[in-house]
Amino acid sequence: MRLRNKPWAKDKLMEYPQYVIQEPESHRGKWDEIFGNDRPLHIEIGTGKGRFILGMAEANPETNYIGIELQPSVIVSALDLLIEAELPNCKLMNVDAAELGKYFANKDVSRVYLNFSDPWPKTRHEKRRLTYKSFLAQYEEILGSGGEVHFKTDNQGLFEYSLTSFSAYGMLLKDVSLDLHNSTMEGNIMTEYEEKFSAKGNRIYRCEAQFRGK
Amino acid sequence: MRLRNKPWAKDKLMEYPQYVIQEPESHRGKWDEIFGNDRPLHIEIGTGKGRFILGMAEANPETNYIGIELQPSVIVSALDLLIEAELPNCKLMNVDAAELGKYFANKDVSRVYLNFSDPWPKTRHEKRRLTYKSFLAQYEEILGSGGEVHFKTDNQGLFEYSLTSFSAYGMLLKDVSLDLHNSTMEGNIMTEYEEKFSAKGNRIYRCEAQFRGK
Ligand SMILES: C[S@@+](CC[C@H](N)C(=O)[O-])C[C@H]1O[C@@H](n2cnc3c(N)ncnc32)[C@H](O)[C@@H]1O
Ligand SMILES: C[S@@+](CC[C@H](N)C(=O)[O-])C[C@H]1O[C@@H](n2cnc3c(N)ncnc32)[C@H](O)[C@@H]1O
Repeated sequence: MRLRNKPWAKDKLMEYPQYVIQEPESHRGKWDEIFGNDRPLHIEIGTGKGRFILGMAEANPETNYIGIELQPSVIVSALDLLIEAELPNCKLMNVDAAELGKYFANKDVSRVYLNFSDPWPKTRHEKRRLTYKSFLAQYEEILGSGGEVHFKTDNQGLFEYSLTSFSAYGMLLKDVSLDLHNSTMEGNIMTEYEEKFSAKGNRIYRCEAQFRGK
Repeated sequence: MRLRNKPWAKDKLMEYPQYVIQEPESHRGKWDEIFGNDRPLHIEIGTGKGRFILGMAEANPETNYIGIELQPSVIVSALDLLIEAELPNCKLMNVDAAELGKYFANKDVSRVYLNFSDPWPKTRHEKRRLTYKSFLAQYEEILGSGGEVHFKTDNQGLFEYSLTSFSAYGMLLKDVSLDLHNSTMEGNIMTEYEEKFSAKGNRIYRCEAQFRGK
């Protein structure tokens, strides 16, 4: 994502503790307290400007959502949307997804969304892909068996890689769509990248993968 | 495949016992005798007019091949090619793949090719798809663990279905290509359908799935 430098972004994130989780480590194992209920928690990793996570939260008031994004200058746009929308079941977290286990205990989370993750096409960068096995191990740690990863991308190489990576990890592929926008799926909520790349005519790929019991 | 009626086809198949296996049940567990060596045996199911299986046999003299096709009027075209090509490592079999276990014992076969299998798009015909679980169970029976299924098609729905079916069966997806003809794969041998549909501009999908140990 191209970054406009917003030196004030970090400060703004701190000004809205009701929307942006401060000290996320301190809520590990007790996210119910943050949301005031024990509904299922779904998180998105690399949430960008928040269009998807806010849309999901609006469409599904019975589910709690957290959008996780590394870049303060990007997530601050999601914060602006959230200030407008005032959704009680949606929060944001400005942290690195490489350390999810610090913030979530086993089974704190029941679904992970990955949307248009950075493709890292070079083989030597494989470990950086959010569907690399070390990331899958982290997702499994916080999801437990039965937990699901839902993944969308327009990047053919990353999608091919991810299918084999999910499979090699022992995950079950529950659903695969090789052309989401010409499929029967209902209620798809588009991300910023999805909007941009589907407008260019790119196909959108999607799959759902589930951790099996050990 | 559109059939031209060839009432003489069955007779012709019987005239060439060196190319068309007669009484295949009698060779169960002892295919080495047929080929005169104990090289690995790869079979194609629904071999059509034989372009793929003959091309593979020509390119890989160290592997034995059997093309299996239900329709006498179709496989007779493969026979014509084989009479021309005289490949000692290629045979044909005019039987129904629904009964593979009658012809092959466990580990007789080390790879199964499925190319442009009939898609059977209606849900109520799912059981007829050659990647339905009952067919996978048969492939596993003759391949054993470690055995592979290599699958090509231009049919998006069948490919999506097959990825989830392989996964649900517990198979490992080793390789997935969502646009074979624009990929790095070398030595691809086209089938008749592949030639026809790729010329129309259809994408060709391909994957390799492997049975895991139990
Ligand atoms: C290509 S953008 C896609 C944004 C959005 N999901 C969409 O579909 O429009 C990928 C985003 O993931 C974020 N990201 C990459 N690695 C991350 C990590 N380890 N932790 C959190 N966010 C990450 C990037 O900062 C970037 O905003
Ligand atoms: C769509 S054609 C594809 C032919 C060839 N593989 C190609 O790619 O050009 C499918 C073929 O599979 C054969 N077939 C379908 N079910 C079969 C079965 N149960 N056993 C053997 N052959 C079968 C059909 O007769 C037909 O020739």
